[in-house]
Parts: sequence; structure tokens; C-alpha cells
Amino acid sequence: MASKESEAVRRHWVAARAAMEAGETSDQELADHRWAELTTEPDNVDYLRVPGRPALWIAPHNAAQDRVLFCLHGGGFVGGSRYSHRKLYAHLARAVGARALLFDYPLAPAHVYPAQLDDAVDTYHWLLDQGIAAEHILFTGDSAGGGMSITTQLRARTDGLPLPAGAMPFSPWVDFEATGASYETNRDRDEFFHRDLVRGLAFMFLGRDNSPRDPYVNPLYGDLTGLGPMYIQTGGDEVLLDDARQLAEAAEKAGVAATLDVFPEMQHTFQMAAGRAPEADDAIQRMARWARPVLRLR
Amino acid sequence: MASKESEAVRRHWVAARAAMEAGETSDQELADHRWAELTTEPDNVDYLRVPGRPALWIAPHNAAQDRVLFCLHGGGFVGGSRYSHRKLYAHLARAVGARALLFDYPLAPAHVYPAQLDDAVDTYHWLLDQGIAAEHILFTGDSAGGGMSITTQLRARTDGLPLPAGAMPFSPWVDFEATGASYETNRDRDEFFHRDLVRGLAFMFLGRDNSPRDPYVNPLYGDLTGLGPMYIQTGGDEVLLDDARQLAEAAEKAGVAATLDVFPEMQHTFQMAAGRAPEADDAIQRMARWARPVLRLR
Repeated sequence: MASKESEAVRRHWVAARAAMEAGETSDQELADHRWAELTTEPDNVDYLRVPGRPALWIAPHNAAQDRVLFCLHGGGFVGGSRYSHRKLYAHLARAVGARALLFDYPLAPAHVYPAQLDDAVDTYHWLLDQGIAAEHILFTGDSAGGGMSITTQLRARTDGLPLPAGAMPFSPWVDFEATGASYETNRDRDEFFHRDLVRGLAFMFLGRDNSPRDPYVNPLYGDLTGLGPMYIQTGGDEVLLDDARQLAEAAEKAGVAATLDVFPEMQHTFQMAAGRAPEADDAIQRMARWARPVLRLR
Repeated sequence: MASKESEAVRRHWVAARAAMEAGETSDQELADHRWAELTTEPDNVDYLRVPGRPALWIAPHNAAQDRVLFCLHGGGFVGGSRYSHRKLYAHLARAVGARALLFDYPLAPAHVYPAQLDDAVDTYHWLLDQGIAAEHILFTGDSAGGGMSITTQLRARTDGLPLPAGAMPFSPWVDFEATGASYETNRDRDEFFHRDLVRGLAFMFLGRDNSPRDPYVNPLYGDLTGLGPMYIQTGGDEVLLDDARQLAEAAEKAGVAATLDVFPEMQHTFQMAAGRAPEADDAIQRMARWARPVLRLR
């Protein structure tokens, strides 16, 4: 049974869907702040604004300075920011023992694809320019950011940049046509997402001119060969469950080591309850255990 | 007329009173997070956790490193933290062009007076030990912290420490007997505080053994002679309005330069809406204009 603390994630999505269906609009920063309410403040972490970029260094005390989590926040490409996800990625960085770089990329519908990917690749390029070795960087991201943790690698490789050590997408969104069977099987369990909503988000992201099968949009259509290992987490109750399964399968077919952990009864991005819910804390610890050897830590 | 953005402060207090009267308890960190929802994230500020102390350095980019706001958060001595007030004092530090030190002190009812004051004096002592000159430090605080911005000076002086350059209490709580006429005149305007509540908070803070007229509890009973100048702000609609007035009068009687700004129609600690409400931003700017010459900045 889901813990009562993870029920807070479910309630968040119930409220978010109700607000959306009522046509409520609030300013984006307030929405991000309310989302961040799910997560506790991890202690002994510094937050340093990167001058000139809308990015945040998340620096746990005693973290290895030369190991970096490159963090791609979720929010359906229409929301989320370094403020909504600051505490979540701080929990993860602390558990791993590395610094994290969390940044704002341009959001839809004001900015359509490939603005988001261009920005992610540019930020990765900047990170490499700071003297961080590619093999000491791990990509991670939730939801829309989870998909980008793969597509950004594909684009970086095309652009001639070295690949990072691996990726940890969680509750990744990769299928922009929303074809997964889990849209049906988890239809009554997922408190927020459903096929029409996901297709609407895809349309806002892609605009009129881009294809949902563009390999830099949906990495299942891309060449995953040669990527570093992947560790994927997903909630057992979410309609995007099959996105995670398909990504793991595609990775393995391409010869990429991929591990998938499905957390029973969990909603989309249940890791947001880090510091409160045992399932979220367990998920963070599992990511850390996977990440440390990949980053050659300890 | 109060701006619609400042109405958010009023709604916060209405909701807080309703929650209190319904006997709702939530964890303190969640309550702090919800309070912080009133304030926007100011950009270009770093947040550095002080190792070994529950304190935060708030460091706006381009701030003078050797000028410090010593920040005493509010919350009736039963709530508030470096998380609830992080953004508020970051707005203020940025406007002043100084760093800010914001820290958690022990809360009632688990800890009664003088634990709070002991901790504030100890933290001030630590700050001086970091090599910051007393004349480059300005005390500031809201509500319970506003009163402490004066009492901490009195205790510091008794302990042989040098006095800071001055103090900026806003919506200060100094009268632990709740005797002010504004408890009547603003009875229907203040959305949260009333005499019984304030006396209840005073009792939780003082416990059975301490007097509300202790000069280190209520500075109106203390010797204010020789303190640096004070700049006091208060909301025109709050029942604590007379606390601010009495503090300003007592300061002037003691030969201390004191300026009082009453913001019409504003609730208690309306400055929490910094970044959103014009009244809050105006208040922050006025504090900054007052603070800079006192700290010999520019």
C-alpha cells in the first residue's frame, strides 16, 4: 500500500487536474512553488546562481566537486523550473555525493521544439567548458526532462560533443503520440495524465511543423547505440509506465545496459515527495546506489 | 486601496486563522513553505548553508561582502524558519547590497525564553568572530524577530559585545501583555492577530517563570540609550500597530533616532509579498534607502 506521505503526491495531481479543468491560471512561479511543497528541504546544501545563465548549482556539503548531475526538470514542457525542482535534485545530489546543475529551458507554448533541446545542449556544452569531464557527468531528468535526458545525448553526439557517463530518467515521457497500453491499463489509477492531455502537451511542444517521431523528440526513433548505461524509474500507477518500459527495451536492443524499476502504486514523479515519503526516499537511494559506480565515486 | 497582490497577504492570514481555529496541525516545514509562497524568488542570489549552525548566508551577487543584515525571522516564537523567510530577506539583502545571515533559533513551546535570545546573542557573537565589524552589521527582523532585533542588542551590550549600526524592525512585537489601543481600533481589520492569541503566544514563549515586563522580553522596559538608529515599519491594519508606535516613542525618549513608517491598509508583515505586491516592494526599497547610509554603503 502506498504510504500516507506518498498520498500527498496523489492529492497534488488530483488538485492539479481539477485546477486545469476549471481553467485556473496562476502565475508560473506560484505554481512551481506549490509543486515544490511536496519536497522537504534537505540540509547542508548550498545553492549558487550561475551568473548569466538561468541555472543553479546545487552543492551538497562534502560532495565531489568534479562529479555533476545534469538535471532536466519536468513539467510537460509548459511548466517547472529550477525552483519547482530545486529540493528534489538537491536530495538526489546529496545522496549521490555530487554537485547538480539545474536550469530553466524555454517553455512551450511560447517556445516550441527545438528551443528546449537547443538550450539543453548549449548548457551541456557550457558545463563541459567548465572543465567537468564528460565521464564525470550523469544526465537525469523527470517526465519531459526524463525524455530529454536521452534526446540531449543524441543531439550532443550529433553536434560532436562527448557523451556523459549515463542517464537516470525517471517517469520519462518519450512517446509523443501516447500510444502505450498503460494509457488504458492505468487510466483509472493515474490522477493527472491521460491520452488527450499528453497529446495536447505534445502539440504545444511540437507546434505545427515538427513530427512526434523526430528522433530528437522521441528517442525510441533515435539511434541509442553507444550511449552510456541507463537507470529508469517509473510509477506503477502512471499512464506513462509504458514510456519507461519502451525506453528500457529500446536501450537493450541497442546494446545499452538499461535497468528499469517500477514502483508499485506510485504516481507520476512520486520522487517529488523526497524527504517525506518512504517510497520517494527509497527511489532516491536506489538512484544514488546506481549512480556512484557509474561516476566512479567511492 | 491595497493592491490585489497585497490581498494575498490578507488571504494568507484569513486561511491561517481558519486553520488554527479548526485545530489543524501540519508539519512545521510545510507550514513554512506555504508562508513562503507569498514571496517571489529574487534572482541572482546565492544561499550558503553555514556548516555547524542552522543558518543561511544569503549572498546577492555584487553585494558588499563585509556588510551584513542580521535577520531575525518572525512566527510568534512558535513557527517560521530560514526557509519561510529566505526569499523575503534575500529581497531585502539585494536591495541593500549586503549579505544577510538568517538563522533558526529554538522555538516555543518546546523551548521557552531565554533560549531564543541566548541563541540570537550567540549567533551575533559568531558573526563578529567571522571578522565582520559591528558597525557594518544591521539588525532586522519581523514580528517576534522585530522585537528581538532590539532585545538582542540589549543582551549583547550586557554581555560586553559591541552594538550593531542600527536596527530595522518591521511589524515588531514588543508588548507581551498586548495592551495597545490598536488591539481595539484594528480589531476588525487584522485578519489573524487578536489580544487572546497574542497573550497565548506570549505565555508559550515565557512559560510560567518569566515576566512579560522583563526588559529583554519587552524592550519598552529596557534601557534603549546608546543604541544605533532604528527604522520601523508597520501595517496600518494590524493590531500590533501600537507596538511599533510605542517602540518608536521609547527610542526617541532615550535619544535614539527612530523613524516609523505606517503603511495604510497593510496587514502584519505585508513585506512577505516582496516581488509581487507594490506595497511590499516599496517597503523593501525604503528599508534599503535607510540602511545604505547607516552601513556606509555608497
